[in-house]
Amino acid sequence: MNQASYYRWWQREDLCYQQGRLCFAGRSVQALADQFGTPAFVYSAARVRDNLQRLHGALAAAGLAGQCSLHYAMKANRFAPLLTFLKQTGLCGIDACSPAEVEHAVSCGFAPHDISFTASSLSARDLAVLARYEGVFMDCDSLHAIRAWGALKPGTKIGIRVNPAMGIGRAANDKLQYAGEATTKFGIYWEQFAEALDIAKLYGLQVGKIHFHTGCGYLTPQLAQLEQIIAHCFRFVDAAGGVERVNIGGGLGVPHLAADEPLDLDRLAAALQRQFAGRGLHVEIEPGDYILKDAGLLLLEKTFVEQKKTTVFVGVDAGFNIAPEPAYYSLPFQPLPLCYDQSPCTVASVVGNINEALDVWYEGAWLPDLSAHTHLALINAGAYSAAMASNHCMRGQFKEFLLF
Amino acid sequence: MNQASYYRWWQREDLCYQQGRLCFAGRSVQALADQFGTPAFVYSAARVRDNLQRLHGALAAAGLAGQCSLHYAMKANRFAPLLTFLKQTGLCGIDACSPAEVEHAVSCGFAPHDISFTASSLSARDLAVLARYEGVFMDCDSLHAIRAWGALKPGTKIGIRVNPAMGIGRAANDKLQYAGEATTKFGIYWEQFAEALDIAKLYGLQVGKIHFHTGCGYLTPQLAQLEQIIAHCFRFVDAAGGVERVNIGGGLGVPHLAADEPLDLDRLAAALQRQFAGRGLHVEIEPGDYILKDAGLLLLEKTFVEQKKTTVFVGVDAGFNIAPEPAYYSLPFQPLPLCYDQSPCTVASVVGNINEALDVWYEGAWLPDLSAHTHLALINAGAYSAAMASNHCMRGQFKEFLLF
Repeated sequence: MNQASYYRWWQREDLCYQQGRLCFAGRSVQALADQFGTPAFVYSAARVRDNLQRLHGALAAAGLAGQCSLHYAMKANRFAPLLTFLKQTGLCGIDACSPAEVEHAVSCGFAPHDISFTASSLSARDLAVLARYEGVFMDCDSLHAIRAWGALKPGTKIGIRVNPAMGIGRAANDKLQYAGEATTKFGIYWEQFAEALDIAKLYGLQVGKIHFHTGCGYLTPQLAQLEQIIAHCFRFVDAAGGVERVNIGGGLGVPHLAADEPLDLDRLAAALQRQFAGRGLHVEIEPGDYILKDAGLLLLEKTFVEQKKTTVFVGVDAGFNIAPEPAYYSLPFQPLPLCYDQSPCTVASVVGNINEALDVWYEGAWLPDLSAHTHLALINAGAYSAAMASNHCMRGQFKEFLLF
Repeated sequence: MNQASYYRWWQREDLCYQQGRLCFAGRSVQALADQFGTPAFVYSAARVRDNLQRLHGALAAAGLAGQCSLHYAMKANRFAPLLTFLKQTGLCGIDACSPAEVEHAVSCGFAPHDISFTASSLSARDLAVLARYEGVFMDCDSLHAIRAWGALKPGTKIGIRVNPAMGIGRAANDKLQYAGEATTKFGIYWEQFAEALDIAKLYGLQVGKIHFHTGCGYLTPQLAQLEQIIAHCFRFVDAAGGVERVNIGGGLGVPHLAADEPLDLDRLAAALQRQFAGRGLHVEIEPGDYILKDAGLLLLEKTFVEQKKTTVFVGVDAGFNIAPEPAYYSLPFQPLPLCYDQSPCTVASVVGNINEALDVWYEGAWLPDLSAHTHLALINAGAYSAAMASNHCMRGQFKEFLLF
């Protein structure tokens, strides 16, 4: 990547330099940082809505309006103001994965019947809480879950999360493989599916949905894999009989690097149209990253700029513990200066304040002379960041703001 | 690993099966789990003290009594009752790495002069807090830190964290490399060391300590590397002049697998004796893992046992977010049944309740028929577990207990 591409690929109308100043959601990012202090996550409500509408628009253009619904994967970002905003848009329900998430979604205004629940390794305590929220739709991901839910809610309608033993993977990120060659804890495999149906029958449970989720962060090149997996999963739908809905999981990705092209939603919608045409099935999608990731910035204060050996390091006032994706998953959050006039840049490593070797935000950042700069902004920090934050080294303090 | 070795390598007087029941710190682990509920971390005060005393004993036996001191790396586990217990043993000071850690250590009873502070990327806010704690010993890890601390505290005594560009690594764990071939953010390299001394001089700072920390979790086979690094670092001591103390960092490891042999403390002490003999330098060590890791268990409730495809999965009621080492660093926490009578076991994967592919506690666990079992215990959960916990998926609830 060269300087020009470093500053070009992510720019869009609501995130770009205007007269040399970085603007986001119609504001000067410098003004936000000065007012809010750091570390601070800022989320653009308008961008969140745009992301939802773009997805709905592509589905509608493919003739799928009314046949598809979106459930926002709240584990991506559970900031309460954001959830209430999402509720008010009317554009999505919720994908929840723990009883506390269900309670939180309801506390933010969602109704239980807006919520699709999919989780693994549920305890008796978990199930007792879930059973109190009439209307939450339960996707059972094990024989155990069918039995336990059947005992609590006999005669109700459930989903079954299946594992097609096929995965969608972005190369070199085996930590994000949910299904595939290696057997995982997720879902019920074909080998146990007949038994699953027998257990459901025993409790009078109607299997109304088949759910699968097989990868994360996929872009256009991975759509062929998704389509193959959907085609493969109709064996579960057919075997169950009476299935009304298919949930294809989440995993819709956004670009992290200049080389990434945005996910082609028209091709996604066309694939869904091809696969589901004439089947009379409702399709559910559970995006998290796609809705939130590029709607969030992380604002950080510069602490130092210094050459060590031959590498230039730029320090900031928070570390990987408040946004673990770059460190743990090698998904970079590109750092940007808040002012930029195209003057020549040098390459630097942007690092945090945690005493761990993996506390590196970004290697190979093209940054101008920062001597007059006070802050940096990291892009793509809207999902799986604050939601996964820890207080490691007691450096867990941060603020969050929803910008309208 | 076979069943016999799975159940043998970790047993010790205060952690073993007695009449078939797992006992820890003189208690039945089943009784603890029944009383406390789960997920719960339990820490043995006696084991913590033993670990400290064993280290002190080996140093004394090598003739280093009075010449060495231990600073517990509190980022490993900052549970307040534990810190107060450590203070009362009188066996260690504190290694802190953030202003909030300093405040917390003081709140638990440590005096500022018990605290050695080493951190990177300090902000002006951080430095202002630190300056209020007279007596905290500051190890500066950048030219920036020397300048900033010098401006706040001219004429005081400081340490300099250096980076010897040599690392101690346990193979295949590049996430725990603090120094070595690749340039890291940690410490001041030889190339910039003369400048560091000039800056210190400018502010009248006396460089009383050289600090380095070059790896994590090392065992006996890595001691030769440690000794080489110490020998190499005397160039910094000699160049600075007037150095009174050398801090060799932490990184003393404990076995995680049957194949690991415990760190030979006599060989560690002999290496220190060889290197420091006749130099009149005080030696500081900053263990974290070594003091806490094997003094803690994580108690979990079994949620299900089920075959998926051909793999048996055992589910428990917490996931990697409350103890990230197994998932992120491939450092396994071996699961144990609370009762064991040497009856034949089968191999299972123990998994948590988080919707992430890396939420696997342990693959290849030798476990008996668990139908009458309610809980499992994970060993080696005392360090870098609760301290790094997040509320991901809103599954961040756990309890901690210090057992006397």
